[in-house]
Amino acid sequence: MKITFLWFGKSKYKDYDDLINLFDKRLKHYCKHRILTLKDPKHSGNPHVQKKKEGQLIMEQLKPSDYLILLDETGQSITSRGLSTLLQKQMNASTAHIFFLIGGAYGVDQPIFDRSNYTLSLSKMTLTHDMARLLIMEQVYRAFTILNGEKYHND
Amino acid sequence: MKITFLWFGKSKYKDYDDLINLFDKRLKHYCKHRILTLKDPKHSGNPHVQKKKEGQLIMEQLKPSDYLILLDETGQSITSRGLSTLLQKQMNASTAHIFFLIGGAYGVDQPIFDRSNYTLSLSKMTLTHDMARLLIMEQVYRAFTILNGEKYHND
Repeated sequence: MKITFLWFGKSKYKDYDDLINLFDKRLKHYCKHRILTLKDPKHSGNPHVQKKKEGQLIMEQLKPSDYLILLDETGQSITSRGLSTLLQKQMNASTAHIFFLIGGAYGVDQPIFDRSNYTLSLSKMTLTHDMARLLIMEQVYRAFTILNGEKYHND
Repeated sequence: MKITFLWFGKSKYKDYDDLINLFDKRLKHYCKHRILTLKDPKHSGNPHVQKKKEGQLIMEQLKPSDYLILLDETGQSITSRGLSTLLQKQMNASTAHIFFLIGGAYGVDQPIFDRSNYTLSLSKMTLTHDMARLLIMEQVYRAFTILNGEKYHND
């Protein structure tokens, strides 16, 4: 199973990038994955147009068989163990490719919500994009350490 | 109103420290606050003893009138706006000092749970201590921007 972390635009702070790279490297021990940073489409100043453009760029990346997990405040709150179970289920179902998607500045368009197989909330609190990126990388890494019965995770 | 962020031991990664310092600086525009990093009591190898020692160090810092917010996975999940309301309520109640507490490696002892005025969960997911520190600093900063009607927070 391959994992793609999909988001728009670069981090504002090098420190976040460094930490994301740290978990990127660690995750290599557990799964094939990549971080796919799409270029922000030119700002139209109109959130609706912006989301539509981003939606098109997202859809271009997806095959019908891909399992799309949208990160959104309105989604399901699950535990770290819950995320590991979700990944295990997809492996059991022979899913070839999982996407973790963080939308643009205005969130995502309705067609992306409709396309999503799962909507996941990392926190009820509003996170910066940088924070959400770092947190999902760390949680996916954590999920694999749980599935492998390793020491990183305590509960 | 003064705020103290109280936790044990140093961050493992300089990048987290840098980001925590970033929000520490930004928060100076809004409130008197400090980060109080207590030294881990010597590891006894026994979680119960460890938590008890930490609990004593925590209690030494607290006056009876201090409002203690314990960060714990089992706590209330609230939105960023909810956190701003919580802070506003304490200001309205003329609370002189709020503590945000992150316990040690094994969490906190029952007397600290009992002393807490509020137990707050940043996420249902298990966070590293570094991540929890960064996130609470960012969220308290965010809360003040909300209270001041500033642009940082979107919802």
